[in-house]
Amino acid sequence: MEKKLILDGNVVANAVKESLKDRIKVLNENGIKPCLATILVGDDPSSETYVKMKGNACSRLGIESKRIHLSKDTTTEELLQVIQELNEDENVHGILLQHPVPHQVDERKAFETISLEKDVDGVTSWGYGQTALGFGVFPSCTPAAILKIMEHYQITAKGKHAVVVGRSPILGKPVSAMLLNENATVTTCHSHTTNLPEMLKQADIVVAAVGKPNFIQGDWLKEGVVVLDAGYNPGNIGDVEYDSCYEKASAITPVPGGVGPVTISMLLKHTVDSAEYTMKKSNKIIH
Amino acid sequence: MEKKLILDGNVVANAVKESLKDRIKVLNENGIKPCLATILVGDDPSSETYVKMKGNACSRLGIESKRIHLSKDTTTEELLQVIQELNEDENVHGILLQHPVPHQVDERKAFETISLEKDVDGVTSWGYGQTALGFGVFPSCTPAAILKIMEHYQITAKGKHAVVVGRSPILGKPVSAMLLNENATVTTCHSHTTNLPEMLKQADIVVAAVGKPNFIQGDWLKEGVVVLDAGYNPGNIGDVEYDSCYEKASAITPVPGGVGPVTISMLLKHTVDSAEYTMKKSNKIIH
Repeated sequence: MEKKLILDGNVVANAVKESLKDRIKVLNENGIKPCLATILVGDDPSSETYVKMKGNACSRLGIESKRIHLSKDTTTEELLQVIQELNEDENVHGILLQHPVPHQVDERKAFETISLEKDVDGVTSWGYGQTALGFGVFPSCTPAAILKIMEHYQITAKGKHAVVVGRSPILGKPVSAMLLNENATVTTCHSHTTNLPEMLKQADIVVAAVGKPNFIQGDWLKEGVVVLDAGYNPGNIGDVEYDSCYEKASAITPVPGGVGPVTISMLLKHTVDSAEYTMKKSNKIIH
Repeated sequence: MEKKLILDGNVVANAVKESLKDRIKVLNENGIKPCLATILVGDDPSSETYVKMKGNACSRLGIESKRIHLSKDTTTEELLQVIQELNEDENVHGILLQHPVPHQVDERKAFETISLEKDVDGVTSWGYGQTALGFGVFPSCTPAAILKIMEHYQITAKGKHAVVVGRSPILGKPVSAMLLNENATVTTCHSHTTNLPEMLKQADIVVAAVGKPNFIQGDWLKEGVVVLDAGYNPGNIGDVEYDSCYEKASAITPVPGGVGPVTISMLLKHTVDSAEYTMKKSNKIIH
């Protein structure tokens, strides 16, 4: 029997963060401090926690973070104004608008206002389109994290059947697109899928991106499947029922400690990428 | 046994074109002549034929067409210049760059230069992203045609398993995205798919977008499948082996006379949509 692999997100995240240190040093030597602006609208406690985690991850690595906290009754127009200002601010290299925003705000319109060059969280339709067509610069961070974990553990997608459960604009759709670009045959399932267990039974790779705790059962899976759990439900619970899926899997991400930490490291990486792009544009050479 | 349905593209295309006549009349009354610019680079005979067909379809309906024919040694820069001029030309409402362009031209760069508002052929990554996220204005014409045929014949995608064979940027990828948005479970297959017949056997809806004549065989399909053949190979041959697939299908598009004519009608529709958008922008009211 093959050895079972626990896909350790902390190991992957640390490798990513380690690789950024020298790059940040070079940026600093050239007078550039990579800076991520985070926008939080309202006072949802989990959103506050996420934004704080991202800010702390930045500061531990020497990436500046500019935290903007808007009141829960912010209008769409007010939010767009803030985003526009950040688009124009030369010292800001990435913009993250924490999802979800209060219901009176047009979230899609706000996402679309983020300039492509600063869309380090991969939320714009333009960025999505570029990613899906194979030349995107900043794919959404969770899909990017899933691909990074696969790369780290040398799990190839080519010729495999990947079944993605979920089709959100920043998770299910882009991860489907990215796995397709890696030459997997990709099936995207969702709430209208009538035969989910039958579909999953065929999967060589399962991506759980459905947002329902413990939703995917081990007996829906085939022996030897690779399970990537992007779920992060209250109480640190993933979308897959870990114990039963563990039994079937050849490799599996735990929750917590799987996709989550890598997602944050991809956000940091994209911010550094963007800062380097700024440096190149100003004709400074990376040495 | 249920009646077998031949999905007649000419019927659908005529219905689309008929619906445009009054809209074009209103545009004309407001001093606007909808205009499609077509760009042909080089002298590939099939491309010449396609461009001519599109131009003729325009003129039959009273849509202007501005035909630009560039020599086969055109550079990328020269082509971008032409596209920029068309972007800025207020009298042009849609721009179509005929695929393929000669090898020295960066086709993707040229596509990306077409402004979103005039991308009536749905080739830009931004337009693709908007379509995939569910709010695109001009999806690529062949995928739009496939969805239009389904709508016309009241074939619902919701809850069905659609298998798309092919993943090109203007066909396989966007039709997969559009079927997903119509609530189908979607599998996208391609040259690296290892078990294509097994996948196709599960399909309620098959979209053939692979560009190989007579590739898909009837005995790969299940009884009652809906077959949509977007192939258009030399000699008017589709991607599906018609006779054997006909036997299995509950509904099937012929080639020619299936997806092809509807594709052109969608191009005309998008051009009219774009002209109306121009009219609205100039604060004229549609009455």
